[in-house]
Amino acid sequence: MSDELKKCREQIDSIDDQMLKLVSERARLAHEIGMLKNGGPIYRPEREAQVLRRLLSQNDGPLPEASVTAIFRTVMSHCRALEKELAVAFLGPLGTYSEEAANKQFGGVSSPVQCASFDEVFRTVEAGQADYAVVPVENSTEGAVGRTLDLLVQTSLKICGEVELPVHHNLLSKSDLSSIRKIYSHAQSLGQCHEWLNRNMSGIERIAVASNAEATRLAAEEPGTAAVASKRAGELFGLNLLAEHIEDDPRNTTRFLILSNHDVAPSGKDKTSLVMATRNVPGAVVQLLSPLAENGVSMTKLESRPLYTGMWEYVFFVDIEGHRDDEKVAKALAELEARAAFVKILGSYPVAVV
Amino acid sequence: MSDELKKCREQIDSIDDQMLKLVSERARLAHEIGMLKNGGPIYRPEREAQVLRRLLSQNDGPLPEASVTAIFRTVMSHCRALEKELAVAFLGPLGTYSEEAANKQFGGVSSPVQCASFDEVFRTVEAGQADYAVVPVENSTEGAVGRTLDLLVQTSLKICGEVELPVHHNLLSKSDLSSIRKIYSHAQSLGQCHEWLNRNMSGIERIAVASNAEATRLAAEEPGTAAVASKRAGELFGLNLLAEHIEDDPRNTTRFLILSNHDVAPSGKDKTSLVMATRNVPGAVVQLLSPLAENGVSMTKLESRPLYTGMWEYVFFVDIEGHRDDEKVAKALAELEARAAFVKILGSYPVAVV
Repeated sequence: MSDELKKCREQIDSIDDQMLKLVSERARLAHEIGMLKNGGPIYRPEREAQVLRRLLSQNDGPLPEASVTAIFRTVMSHCRALEKELAVAFLGPLGTYSEEAANKQFGGVSSPVQCASFDEVFRTVEAGQADYAVVPVENSTEGAVGRTLDLLVQTSLKICGEVELPVHHNLLSKSDLSSIRKIYSHAQSLGQCHEWLNRNMSGIERIAVASNAEATRLAAEEPGTAAVASKRAGELFGLNLLAEHIEDDPRNTTRFLILSNHDVAPSGKDKTSLVMATRNVPGAVVQLLSPLAENGVSMTKLESRPLYTGMWEYVFFVDIEGHRDDEKVAKALAELEARAAFVKILGSYPVAVV
Repeated sequence: MSDELKKCREQIDSIDDQMLKLVSERARLAHEIGMLKNGGPIYRPEREAQVLRRLLSQNDGPLPEASVTAIFRTVMSHCRALEKELAVAFLGPLGTYSEEAANKQFGGVSSPVQCASFDEVFRTVEAGQADYAVVPVENSTEGAVGRTLDLLVQTSLKICGEVELPVHHNLLSKSDLSSIRKIYSHAQSLGQCHEWLNRNMSGIERIAVASNAEATRLAAEEPGTAAVASKRAGELFGLNLLAEHIEDDPRNTTRFLILSNHDVAPSGKDKTSLVMATRNVPGAVVQLLSPLAENGVSMTKLESRPLYTGMWEYVFFVDIEGHRDDEKVAKALAELEARAAFVKILGSYPVAVV
C-alpha cells in the first residue's frame, strides 16, 4: 500500500471516529426529546424536512443532494428506532415502487405491512394496525391514481408528507438494437421519450398498449420488438437493456403521499391538499377558487374527477402552497368553505425533499 | 415548543452541521483514494470490514451495533457511488432475502441485477455483466443450499465476503390463538421453536411440511391452523401475526456469500473456504484434514456433499479461520493440497460484521 493511500485512510479513520461520537450524541439527544414529548408522535415529518433542507442549503459537494438526504434519513431513522419502530403500510408485494418510497421517506428502519389493495392500506392505518400509509397519487406514465383519490375523499387519515421518486424509461428487448422493428409502451411513456425515439429509432413503428408491464410482456414474447419501461419491469421479464434513461425530461417523477392519524405542524415550506365539490357544472369551479387568488395563495394543482356514486357529479382535488395554519391560507380556506357545497382539507405537509 | 425541546433541537442541528462537513470531507478523501487506485476494484470488502470493526469496538451506545454498521455502510456506499455504482446480481424477484443481504452488504447504493436461477447469478458475474454475486449458502431452516455448493465447485469466481441475516420465526394464522388446533412448518423450524411451542401451545398437533412457504399456504386455506414462518411469508398469504420471534435461539441466521472476479486482501479477521475431494471413502477425510490441526488452523465448518456427476463420490466443503496469505494457513493448505485428489480454494474473506 502506498504512503499516500495509507495517509488518506488514516484521515478517513479519524473522520469516522468523530462521526461515531457525533451520531451517538445525536441519538442520546433524540432519546431525550422522545422523553420530553411524552407519548406524542415519534416521527415528525416537518422537523425532518427542516433538517434535510438546512443540510442541503449547506452542502457544497462532492456528495450529490440525494446522497446527503439518504445518509441523514438513515441517521434519523436509526435514532427514531431507539424509541419505536414505525409500522408502515403499502401495497405489496415487497420490491414495488411503493416500498422504495416508504424506504426513502422512513430511512430504512421501519416495519413493513404489506397490503393487498389501496383500500386495505387505508383501512390498516385507520384501524391503528400500522402507523403510516404510503400510496402513489400521481404517476408520470399512468396519470392520477384514481383509487387513491377516491379513498382520500372518504378517509379519516391526514396527509402528512409526500415523496417523489424519479422515473426513468429504458429501451428493453431480447433482440439486438439493429433488429428492432416495433416498440411497445404506454402512450404516455412513448410521449415522454418522443425526442429520443425520433433521433435514435426513427421510422420504427411505435405501438401504444395498456401499461408498461404489458409492453415488457409483449416484447419478451415477440422477437424483433422492444419495450419502453422501467429497468425493474425489464428484469421481471428477462429483457436486456438496449438504452437507459431515454426520457426527454429527466425530472419525471412519481408522487406518493404519506398518511397518518395526526396533523403536521408547519415546516416553513408546505403544501395543503383539499378536495371540494359543487352542485353546479364544472365551470363553476373557477369562481369557487377565487378566494385563493384574492388572498395571494398559489394553486399548484387542480384536478377534477367524476364521482359516480354520491351526491356530486364532480370533485376537485386542489393543492395550494402553504400550511393551513398560515394566516392567508387560513383566511382563503375559510372563504372557500363558505362557498363550496363540500370542502375537506386532506392535510398540510412539508413539500417533498430530494 | 418547550425551551428544553428547542435546546435539544439546536444541539442536534449543530451536530448535523458537523457531520455534513465530515461526511463531505470523507467523500473527497474516498475520491482521492479512487484516483490513487487507478482502476483497481472500487469495493474493498477487507477495508470496509476493518472500518466497521474499529467503529464497533468504540461504540458505547446508545445506538445498537446493527444501527452503527447500517449508518456507516450507507456512508461508505454513497462515497463509493461517486466512483461507480456497483452492479450486484442475485436471485429475483426483488423483496427476497437475497436482496436484503445485498442491501446490507453494499449499503443501499447498488444497481440490482435480478436473475432467474442461481446458475444465472454465477454466469452473470463470470461474464462480467455484473460486478458481484450474492447467493445464500446456508439457511437455518432448510440447511445448506445445494445448488450454490455445486456451483461453487465449478465457478471461476472467488468468495470475497459473507453476510449473515437474522432469521425470526413467528406464529401466523387467519384464526384466533384460542382456536388453533394444528401447526404447520418445516421440521427444522418446528425444532427451532420447540421450547416456545411446548410452553405456549402444548398439546396442539405439529405437522412437518416441505417448506415454511408451504406451511403458510396451508394455514391460509384451513381454518383453525397456524404456520411457523417468517413475517414476510405470512404477509404473502395474508396471515395475521399471533406471536413474533418465537425461536428458542435468537441468534438464528441465514448466511450469504458475496462472489466476484477478484481476490480480497487480509482484514485481520478472515475465513478461508475450500472444497476438496478424495477417491477414498468418506472416513478418509479425517486423515486428509490433519494438516490443519498440525498447523494450528481451526476448522469452523465441514460439510460433505455427494456428487452424482463427475469423478468423485463426495466433495467436502471446509471453512477455516484465517486468510490464505497467513503463514500457518498457507503452510496447512500446501500440505493439504499435496494429499487430496482435488482441492480448490474458494476464497479468503472477512468474517461477517453485524
